[in-house]
Amino acid sequence: MNRAAMSHPALSRLAVEDDELLLGGRTLTALAEQVGQTPFYAYDRDAITRRVDAVRATIPREVSLHYAVKANPMPAVVDHCATLVDGFDVASLGEMRTALDTGMPAEEISIAGPGKRREELRAAVAAGVTVNVESPGELERLAEAGEAAGRRPRAAVRVNPDFELKSSGMKMSGGPKQFGIDAEEVPGVLGRLGELGLHFRGLHIFSGSQNLSVASLVEAQNATFDLAYRLAEDAPAPLEMLNIGGGFGIPYFPGEEPLDIAACGENLERRVEECRDRLGAVEVMLELGRYLVGEAGVYACRVLDRKVSRGHTFLVTDGGLHHHLAASGNFGQVIRKNYPVVTPRRVHDGPRETVSVVGPLCTPLDLLADRVEMGRAEEGDLVAVLQSGAYGYSASPHRFLGHPPPEEVLV
Amino acid sequence: MNRAAMSHPALSRLAVEDDELLLGGRTLTALAEQVGQTPFYAYDRDAITRRVDAVRATIPREVSLHYAVKANPMPAVVDHCATLVDGFDVASLGEMRTALDTGMPAEEISIAGPGKRREELRAAVAAGVTVNVESPGELERLAEAGEAAGRRPRAAVRVNPDFELKSSGMKMSGGPKQFGIDAEEVPGVLGRLGELGLHFRGLHIFSGSQNLSVASLVEAQNATFDLAYRLAEDAPAPLEMLNIGGGFGIPYFPGEEPLDIAACGENLERRVEECRDRLGAVEVMLELGRYLVGEAGVYACRVLDRKVSRGHTFLVTDGGLHHHLAASGNFGQVIRKNYPVVTPRRVHDGPRETVSVVGPLCTPLDLLADRVEMGRAEEGDLVAVLQSGAYGYSASPHRFLGHPPPEEVLV
Repeated sequence: MNRAAMSHPALSRLAVEDDELLLGGRTLTALAEQVGQTPFYAYDRDAITRRVDAVRATIPREVSLHYAVKANPMPAVVDHCATLVDGFDVASLGEMRTALDTGMPAEEISIAGPGKRREELRAAVAAGVTVNVESPGELERLAEAGEAAGRRPRAAVRVNPDFELKSSGMKMSGGPKQFGIDAEEVPGVLGRLGELGLHFRGLHIFSGSQNLSVASLVEAQNATFDLAYRLAEDAPAPLEMLNIGGGFGIPYFPGEEPLDIAACGENLERRVEECRDRLGAVEVMLELGRYLVGEAGVYACRVLDRKVSRGHTFLVTDGGLHHHLAASGNFGQVIRKNYPVVTPRRVHDGPRETVSVVGPLCTPLDLLADRVEMGRAEEGDLVAVLQSGAYGYSASPHRFLGHPPPEEVLV
Repeated sequence: MNRAAMSHPALSRLAVEDDELLLGGRTLTALAEQVGQTPFYAYDRDAITRRVDAVRATIPREVSLHYAVKANPMPAVVDHCATLVDGFDVASLGEMRTALDTGMPAEEISIAGPGKRREELRAAVAAGVTVNVESPGELERLAEAGEAAGRRPRAAVRVNPDFELKSSGMKMSGGPKQFGIDAEEVPGVLGRLGELGLHFRGLHIFSGSQNLSVASLVEAQNATFDLAYRLAEDAPAPLEMLNIGGGFGIPYFPGEEPLDIAACGENLERRVEECRDRLGAVEVMLELGRYLVGEAGVYACRVLDRKVSRGHTFLVTDGGLHHHLAASGNFGQVIRKNYPVVTPRRVHDGPRETVSVVGPLCTPLDLLADRVEMGRAEEGDLVAVLQSGAYGYSASPHRFLGHPPPEEVLV
């Protein structure tokens, strides 16, 4: 028996009993029986609640917390989040339907995306959802949708800032971008929005995602508020809301450390107070997706074969790239790195070995973990990929090679 | 009017009338009406037929041509291929059902994949499909499935060669691999296969895919035959079949040239003759997927917005990464390169401009073409991604962000 080298921060937050990984108080083995198949994604309801509580405890009371549905649109997850957060941000008509189904009031829902179809604009107007307008053309189409429906559209302007969020997993601001309206063009658009008589809600300023650097996030928060003050001068009405985005990252790869959200919260405290002085009773919204659900989920698959090829051991599983594209390294990563992977019945103790975990697909891309140390797993054992609660199930090509899709369960 | 710089080899094979791209004799605009929505994939039936004819014309008459269903498993495409090729290779039980539905005899179908579930093995045994055995453990499970069903399983051994296919898009041989059985372990497995009394079909030796180098392919073909001769010495019965894989690539990216298949065919001519002398009446199979269908398909989406951000023009479309992951650069590419993209109603003539084509998703990964020159496209115009007949529809995360899935049509 030797202690594992496995020390991913995710493990410190997961319950382990008799060296077995628990989710929602149950072993993954029991969950697999309950789901009735492998592979499956399992999300821990309490872990989501705890994460929301932790964020609430660090941000100013007057800041609203929104859930970005795209991170995990499973209806049960969105339903659960509806009891915890103040509003939803959606990225499509499909997500809007899921959000409305929870009973969340339309006034607390906004829709964003660089290319909204006319039927999406019409649906948002019909529902009374706030549209984050992302181009001058879209503003006109939104006004037309409102006119056709005889309703006054609720519109915010999504801004492509003139700064960028440094050290970000994904940069979404600065330079030419398909997202939002360039900051320098916003005054003109705000004027036109007033002319068109739309209900002006406010601004959406989102600079990036998956960031683990407090300094970068604080810098971006500050730049966001400063930009909002500047743009508010040209607004057709006082801002009702200011969506400052989120960008909070979670640790995936070796060496990454959890974000110190307390430090982000302290900065926010100062800026929100100042904002009240500058802009009045504006609702400041923090929009988080991955940060609320990403660490609450695992992806579980089963070992079909242990195969030794030229001295190297492969665990061939029934899960892979087609279910969990991001863990395979084919979703935005330039250099492939391993997600944390464990043998759920031997998390810390028992025999360890160095293996690669692969899927059933006829492609070398189907790699869940490359030469990782984990508890020895036999044929029939489960393997769990941690940090899989966001951008897993919905962001994967289920049909690829015709294998059955994974299931999802919230426990 | 200026002649386009666009000179991708794919364009020379596509019909263009009045500067408009045709597929199956129809304009993409007419096809979009017929499909009833954008985005959609359209595959050209005659283009597939012509490609099969071209391959047949260059390979020895006695070589069988198999279609690897994974490249494009649309039932209509597989049905069409059933009239053209000698057999199918499938990568899952799902694909096996599609293949059998065409009426292709089970004897002409084989199933491969590093991790076959027990129900897949049972299904293959029940159908009489040849199983490419990929590990010693799988051999035992196949024998068990046969015993339980009271049927004699048809088994071939998939070999992980001791050489590699150079310059390959994807290396699938040499060194430790999850695919097949290491060449040096094959004699033992062949012995065990004989002991278990399975119906020995032959060998499957596949070394890589998406290769555009004749020299590399010829070298791999030669090494494949040599390896087969060596391994045949330990076979429990004469080889009935030898699947030599394929590996034929198509040009995707700037600077890539079509493969000279005539040169591959000439080499095959010599080797097949020799093979008959060495191994007797063995059926040599060439297995092609992408090469047969990849150039026969386009992905069409519609411009929702023309957006100029800081001097750069974005065509924001209703299609993107969620429908065509490979074109976005997130499917095995280390450095993102552009697939060929055209404005179907202005293929060669009319005003040109340099634009980026993006999708509706809230992520910078949703990029179909980065700064390409193409015919000017307005809101409502179609944009077509060429070379999209393989690993497009089925290899993409349709659910990502909740937008509608694409349609598929064979014309």
